[in-house]
Amino acid sequence: MIKTAVILAAGMGKRIRDKSGDRPKGFLTFDEKPMVQYSIEKLLNAGVTKIFIGTGYKSEMYEELKKQYPQIECVYNEKYETTGSMYTLYLLKNYIHEDFLLLESDLLYEKSALNILLTHKMQDVILASKFTNNGDEVFVEISSTNSLVNMTKNKEELENIAAELVGITKLTYSTFQQLCIKVKGMLQKQQLMDYEAALVEIARQKEIYVEICHDLVWCEVDDEHHLKWAVDVIYPMIKAREHVPRMIERTILLNPGPATTTDTVKYAQVVSDICPREEEFGQILEWISNELTKLVADPKYYTSVLFGGSGTAAVEAIISSIVGNEKIIIINNGAYGERMCKIANVYELDYIEYKSPATDKINLINLEQLISHSDEKIAHLAVVHCETTTGMLNPIKEIGDLCKKYEINLIVDAMSSFAAIPIDMKEMNIGYLAASSNKNLQGMAGVSFIIAEYQRLHNCKKIKPRNLYLHLYDQFEYFQRTQQMRFTPPVQTIYALKQAIIETKYEGISRRYDRYSKSWETLINGIEKLGLTHLVHKNHHSKIITSIIEPNYPNYDFYQMHDYFASKGFTIYPGKLDKLGTFRIANIGNITYKDMEQFIDLLDLYIKGLQGGEEYFIS
Amino acid sequence: MIKTAVILAAGMGKRIRDKSGDRPKGFLTFDEKPMVQYSIEKLLNAGVTKIFIGTGYKSEMYEELKKQYPQIECVYNEKYETTGSMYTLYLLKNYIHEDFLLLESDLLYEKSALNILLTHKMQDVILASKFTNNGDEVFVEISSTNSLVNMTKNKEELENIAAELVGITKLTYSTFQQLCIKVKGMLQKQQLMDYEAALVEIARQKEIYVEICHDLVWCEVDDEHHLKWAVDVIYPMIKAREHVPRMIERTILLNPGPATTTDTVKYAQVVSDICPREEEFGQILEWISNELTKLVADPKYYTSVLFGGSGTAAVEAIISSIVGNEKIIIINNGAYGERMCKIANVYELDYIEYKSPATDKINLINLEQLISHSDEKIAHLAVVHCETTTGMLNPIKEIGDLCKKYEINLIVDAMSSFAAIPIDMKEMNIGYLAASSNKNLQGMAGVSFIIAEYQRLHNCKKIKPRNLYLHLYDQFEYFQRTQQMRFTPPVQTIYALKQAIIETKYEGISRRYDRYSKSWETLINGIEKLGLTHLVHKNHHSKIITSIIEPNYPNYDFYQMHDYFASKGFTIYPGKLDKLGTFRIANIGNITYKDMEQFIDLLDLYIKGLQGGEEYFIS
Repeated sequence: MIKTAVILAAGMGKRIRDKSGDRPKGFLTFDEKPMVQYSIEKLLNAGVTKIFIGTGYKSEMYEELKKQYPQIECVYNEKYETTGSMYTLYLLKNYIHEDFLLLESDLLYEKSALNILLTHKMQDVILASKFTNNGDEVFVEISSTNSLVNMTKNKEELENIAAELVGITKLTYSTFQQLCIKVKGMLQKQQLMDYEAALVEIARQKEIYVEICHDLVWCEVDDEHHLKWAVDVIYPMIKAREHVPRMIERTILLNPGPATTTDTVKYAQVVSDICPREEEFGQILEWISNELTKLVADPKYYTSVLFGGSGTAAVEAIISSIVGNEKIIIINNGAYGERMCKIANVYELDYIEYKSPATDKINLINLEQLISHSDEKIAHLAVVHCETTTGMLNPIKEIGDLCKKYEINLIVDAMSSFAAIPIDMKEMNIGYLAASSNKNLQGMAGVSFIIAEYQRLHNCKKIKPRNLYLHLYDQFEYFQRTQQMRFTPPVQTIYALKQAIIETKYEGISRRYDRYSKSWETLINGIEKLGLTHLVHKNHHSKIITSIIEPNYPNYDFYQMHDYFASKGFTIYPGKLDKLGTFRIANIGNITYKDMEQFIDLLDLYIKGLQGGEEYFIS
Repeated sequence: MIKTAVILAAGMGKRIRDKSGDRPKGFLTFDEKPMVQYSIEKLLNAGVTKIFIGTGYKSEMYEELKKQYPQIECVYNEKYETTGSMYTLYLLKNYIHEDFLLLESDLLYEKSALNILLTHKMQDVILASKFTNNGDEVFVEISSTNSLVNMTKNKEELENIAAELVGITKLTYSTFQQLCIKVKGMLQKQQLMDYEAALVEIARQKEIYVEICHDLVWCEVDDEHHLKWAVDVIYPMIKAREHVPRMIERTILLNPGPATTTDTVKYAQVVSDICPREEEFGQILEWISNELTKLVADPKYYTSVLFGGSGTAAVEAIISSIVGNEKIIIINNGAYGERMCKIANVYELDYIEYKSPATDKINLINLEQLISHSDEKIAHLAVVHCETTTGMLNPIKEIGDLCKKYEINLIVDAMSSFAAIPIDMKEMNIGYLAASSNKNLQGMAGVSFIIAEYQRLHNCKKIKPRNLYLHLYDQFEYFQRTQQMRFTPPVQTIYALKQAIIETKYEGISRRYDRYSKSWETLINGIEKLGLTHLVHKNHHSKIITSIIEPNYPNYDFYQMHDYFASKGFTIYPGKLDKLGTFRIANIGNITYKDMEQFIDLLDLYIKGLQGGEEYFIS
């Protein structure tokens, strides 16, 4: 059991002095508590009883911590201005007499980082992670047996890059002794040597294992950019993950939303009771509105208006609130296009339904002819981005260009694409976009929203209201004025949405779509191997949801197949096309290609069961 | 530390044989597990290492349990048909050699019941609770020092009734020995003697402490009625309470909803991800719809239609969906009556606004004149039950009578009264009622609902739809057909609502209103003592929310007062009347008169601060 830790904290943190108030980096605060204190407390909780801090710049601040934590001993590097981290570590050689954990002082990390090292069967272990792209990474090259070969900030120096250094390392006393002997001479010439370089040196003679942890939330804070990332994403992520009291049984939802969520989003709903008219809650709404906007537009010009309700509520809010007596074209190539027509119909709008085949790309030439030949000016055009009926991805960029040409306001139902497929409202010429909390955002159902330019929303005032609850202008204007929703919002769903947005930022939309795409490829390749086909061509497929043609066996029954998958923890979804027998598989939410592989394996068994009898899959 | 437990399980459970399948009562199952097994596991988890079961009727079933739990030893009472529980206990005299817990076999209880006794400083302790009203209670009479005086099912035999026996008792070995000596002779004559009577005997010579636990969830199961209560309420309550991983910081919301909720409702939101189109979820919706209906009407004729949205969504759904070209009167004596007018206006309905002063009772004579003098037939009348603006309780029974006389359909916005103030839709002649999840139901915000007769809802088909999302008939018809909501529901809010309904059943509406009323009396008496007055007269006050006239001090500022209370964990609410300076205090949710006492104390301090300077309340 390791009882000793070393924190290297001599550095001057020059790049972050503005934000640190000239304090050492370890004293950057999160929820008013210095970063290094989180580290100290995690070490103590993990069973460490002695913490050496290698100090330099403003060492008195670390000395001060000893009052609160008697387990701390500070070792001062008086040459901190001219020496590197290895020099500070070297100064500790007469203090350390056993195996220890070596940490940098400017790290935010989850406690599991320590557990991984403390319980690791290897003696000397460097903790590494997937790439953070923070611009200041130390990249790690490893051997085929996961031993350290090299590590450096300079990618060019490496033959291959396996991972990124976290800055938490487990070292045996003997390795440390060897290290000290090794670097003794070197330090005379290279005072600025950092400990990473020294570890590379020692790795030539002694195996140092590199543990790559793909699911570790951490960051280092070297500059202002890192700090923003730490404050906005990493600190709340760690807090949420460490507050999960117990894991929730996982189900794999392959229906097109609500999607599988993380346990952190689930537990984000559990908060002290709050009145949603309180300022504190208003600030959360404001934050959410701003962050949702940022995913698709510049929040300086655009904003998000939230509603309590499903995605359809948001679509209805747009269509019923922004169209006056002008003409609107609604593209219908699936159930959700049809739903928009239904809304236009119920409000008796002057609309043209443009029907397009469910599985073919929209014919833009025909569409343009319709627009240009219209007697009346076409003022609005509404289209579904990803049609959940089929998985078809409609070409909103091209439609946006067309709308630009004819000065048409484009309305996009982005329910199934938002937060997965990159959208740029300005570039795509989208006037209004509707989406919801529970699909690719991976939040809980109950909130939907509309994103549009402030100017456009202000202009809606002119349109005579057609309803109250879903009236877009009133909802917008009231929120601008009060930071409140007009009617009681779904408070806990809002908290879940906040956490879901933090997690979306953490993953990033393009990486999320990469993950979804990989799941989709696994699905498509898998079903092809099983002799099944899907409806929409790859070229205009959303990679979000796939309509699969039902297996052609007399004993096939969707509901039986559904129950078979349900018993294995997978939820599949029926088709929505009248003519063709299909079922649907969505690959959104907190799932990966590995879940999809498991799905394919189960589907394989199921089909074998159809071929050979029930014994294959009934168990 | 107590290591031994005795479960008395010889009885024949005659009154529940139909349901137990002729098994002993301990083998009634919950989630497919026998009741006695929950008890055994709780005992083992609490540190008990030896469990004696006094068996009789079908003793072989208890013998069978020994395979799974080697800690069990069964002692057979062959005379179980002709003897009582004391006889069974007496048979154990040669087996027990230390202090022990004595339990009945037909109990469902939370683990805290055991902890209370095991950690109790007194030696011999009987566990008692508030009254369950189950019809088979053993009532307990105690001395001024909480010692057992008497206990019996016959109330007449008692001088005072302090509590109800739970059926879990801690006994020292010496008391048990005395008990055995005492009853030895008695048992010859009174073979049917129960152990309660024997404890009363022994209490004459030795103190037996009665611990009354007011917040213990438990029940015994003697008959079919008890079983239904156990299945519907007690078992899910215990499950929810034992699944709370940690307490959530409590805030006292004195705003008129969302109200303070229990931790069990908060954690009920955390469930495995589920697609709301799944049958399992449909069953929950169906259960909720049925239970909500039962609170105000006979579910054979009435049903509840759920919407994802705030209470206003439900009110708008009614007004926009059920009124054709006919005339509707809307009573406006506050902001929520006015909101209904706004809805009627936006849909261009043929409505008459009947304005009534905010703080006076509605003048029913004038109202009747309006109805009887109308040129056109009045088809509908809409009124708010409890007007949140003022706390005024409108006389819906009398208005219902009027509506009956003139064959008018009565629409009631019961947002602030539902689940607190008893309502009988049939008796009150209410056609449509709207309410929501987050006020007196003590659930989370995000779900609202409409209750009406099936027949009326079917008739709505005739009315031309005015919107899609809030269209009542479609929502009703779709749910009847599919057990699903038309559009993605707020899944987790639905789970919270389910738990909130279970808790509402547990408390009962009239007891809930008693609790609210007691809080309200505390509030009213308290503010009077502080020299403050409130708006609406007691005779027509809802006892739900109170408009208090602001203190008349030059340095008074609502927002400052708000922040002062916020710093103490209380949320207060601004007024909503233009002319008069008021603030509002609601007394709904999971709070008691004790919270209200604390509020009054703080208000006292605050007012003293206004009088004497800031030092009183700024701290």
